[in-house]
Formats: sequence, structure tokens, C-alpha cells
Amino acid sequence: MAYNVAPLQKLIEQFERLPGIGRKSAQRLAFHMLDVPRERAEEFAGAILDARRLIKKCAVCQNLADSELCPVCSDPKRDHSLICVVEDPQDVVAFERTREYPGTYHVLHGLISPMEGVGPDQICIRELLVRLQGDEVREVIMATNPTVEGEATAMYLARLLKPMGLRVTRLAYGIPVGGSLEYADEVTLFRALEGRSEI
Amino acid sequence: MAYNVAPLQKLIEQFERLPGIGRKSAQRLAFHMLDVPRERAEEFAGAILDARRLIKKCAVCQNLADSELCPVCSDPKRDHSLICVVEDPQDVVAFERTREYPGTYHVLHGLISPMEGVGPDQICIRELLVRLQGDEVREVIMATNPTVEGEATAMYLARLLKPMGLRVTRLAYGIPVGGSLEYADEVTLFRALEGRSEI
Repeated sequence: MAYNVAPLQKLIEQFERLPGIGRKSAQRLAFHMLDVPRERAEEFAGAILDARRLIKKCAVCQNLADSELCPVCSDPKRDHSLICVVEDPQDVVAFERTREYPGTYHVLHGLISPMEGVGPDQICIRELLVRLQGDEVREVIMATNPTVEGEATAMYLARLLKPMGLRVTRLAYGIPVGGSLEYADEVTLFRALEGRSEI
Repeated sequence: MAYNVAPLQKLIEQFERLPGIGRKSAQRLAFHMLDVPRERAEEFAGAILDARRLIKKCAVCQNLADSELCPVCSDPKRDHSLICVVEDPQDVVAFERTREYPGTYHVLHGLISPMEGVGPDQICIRELLVRLQGDEVREVIMATNPTVEGEATAMYLARLLKPMGLRVTRLAYGIPVGGSLEYADEVTLFRALEGRSEI
């Protein structure tokens, strides 16, 4: 049923466009927005507009930043000769959570995907090449997701970077820590066998 | 981990405040907002602000409306001598979906709940009494949810309205259409037995 109140209908439709939000949730969220104190709703709308206005891409690694350089690229304590190449900003967050990675990142903002018409020029590969010319980079770690597109992008980049005399590496495959062998798929298990190390 | 980009952090926190949205979903939604075209994000924020600015309560039934009267109250074809009392605007939507209810509504915007300190004065009961004095109302249907608070509110209102010479009714209890007897709880089944009718 269409709501007869136009601004409400519009708000529901806007919520429905968000990923993972169905019709019912969109209704609930829209009614919630009408229910909270007015300042709370204005704060929410303001946060969206602020984020869009203030957040841009880091001039070096293309990660999200609210100044010219992101916190990682502007940190002199990070190892700038080590670059971890990831698909999107969420992946950077995942690595930073480990609190162990000493290097910098490069965010591609996508993966090469011929099926969806995304070629090497549509993602931030050019910016990576520019970095490699200027910096004294030692190693580039491919940390794209272990999917078809992730693998293809990693292979494409590896072939491009190796002739430049760089060390190009890939994240290890294996069984996840805390995972159960019983539920590991055969490819993962095979890779875990292949990559086994001395205790 | 806290994101080092303040406007992003703020946006995630705002999404996290929404009902049913956890930490992970909030992150995904915030990144989505940064990913869509700028106009889309502005449209979304605008819809929230518009809804808050334009939507008010109907002067008669207290349902959400973008003008003095809601579409139901301003419709001369509806039966204005019949009032269905509900907890919130979502309930009106549920009834309108049946396309069968000919009367009008009254939205209480809450239920009496001594546990949460909500008394009869905190919900829109006063507005209902005003309506009953002016209009030539014939019947008031209690359609609050079958919960402790819903029942208590219905009983409170019934006791208040009956002396006014009105017909006060309650929605039928019974097994839901399409439901399975096997899974019906004993109270519902007992009410279904009690309320049985001739075929």
C-alpha cells in the first residue's frame, strides 16, 4: 500500500534504497525518524551531508580522508616502502584492526571485472603506478578478496609490477583461525596443505 | 576500532542509533552513503529533513499528515461515526491494507504503561474525548495490540467511554488465517474456542 502522506512515502523509498534494507525495515526506520526528537533527525541528516562534503580520497593511497593525506600516509612512523593493495576502504579498517601491519595501503576502489564492464582504467591503478615511480617502494602486497575478480586483479597487477623490480606478494591462503577443518572447503584445505610450514 | 576520519566515524554512529542496525550494518551503510553519487546522498538527507518539516499530526485523529487533516479524516466517503483506536500510525497502515475498513481512526501515539511511567495524559486520549463530544460517533473499536499494555489501555478507555452511551468493541481474538493449530499458543486457542461462530 502506498502511504497517502507524500513526504513519508518518499522517506520510506529513500531508506529502501539502502543495501540490506527491505520494505518492512524501511517503514520502521522512516517511522523511527519521525518519532525521535527533531534535533536527532537533523543531526542524522547533517552527518550524511557533512560526510559527503568533508570526506575525499587521500592524495597518495586513495583511502578516505578528511584532509589532503589520510592518517596512515601522513604518519612518519609507518613503513612507506611497503604497500598493501586492497579493494575498498573497509579492507583498510580490517587490517588496521590487527594493529600489526606497519606499512601503508593503496585502495583500488573496485576490482577488474570484465563481466560488469570494469576495466583497469576504472579503478585506481594509475594512482598506484604513479606512487611506485616516485617512492622507493620495496614490496607490494596483494590483499584483494579471494574471489574470481580479486584474483584476476591481483594477477593483472602482479604482471604489471614485477618488471619494475618490486617484490610482489599475496596474502596466505589457509584455514581461518578458530575455524573447523570439518567445514573448510576443499580448495581452502588444499591451499592450507600447500602452504604448510615447519613448527 | 575507531575510524580516524571524524566525519565517517560520526556517520557510522548515527546509523548505529537506528533501531535494528548493528555495528557492522552501520559501517556498511555509512560506506554506501559515501559510495553513491552525491545527489543521491543529498536526496536521502533531504527526505529526512522534509519529512520532519512537513509531517505533523492530523488535527482530528492524530495520525501523521502533511496537511491540517489526514486523507482519511478529510474523506467524506468514510464513515465518521466509527472510530478505530490504535497505538501508532503503522497500525493505521495495516488496517488500510485490508481495504475493507469504512470508518476513521484515532492514533494514541503510545499505550498506558505504569512500568515505563506512561499515564493516560501522556498519550492522545484527551484528543479522543474531544472528538466524542463534538461528533455523532456511534462506535469505538479498540484495536490496540494484544499485549499487557494494549489490553490495559483498551480496558481503561472502555471504562471511560461506555458511560457516554457509545458502543465500545474489541478486535476478535483467534487463530491467524493461514496459521497452524499446532503452533497456536493455548491462550489464543482458548480465545478462538470462546469466540467460535456458526458456519
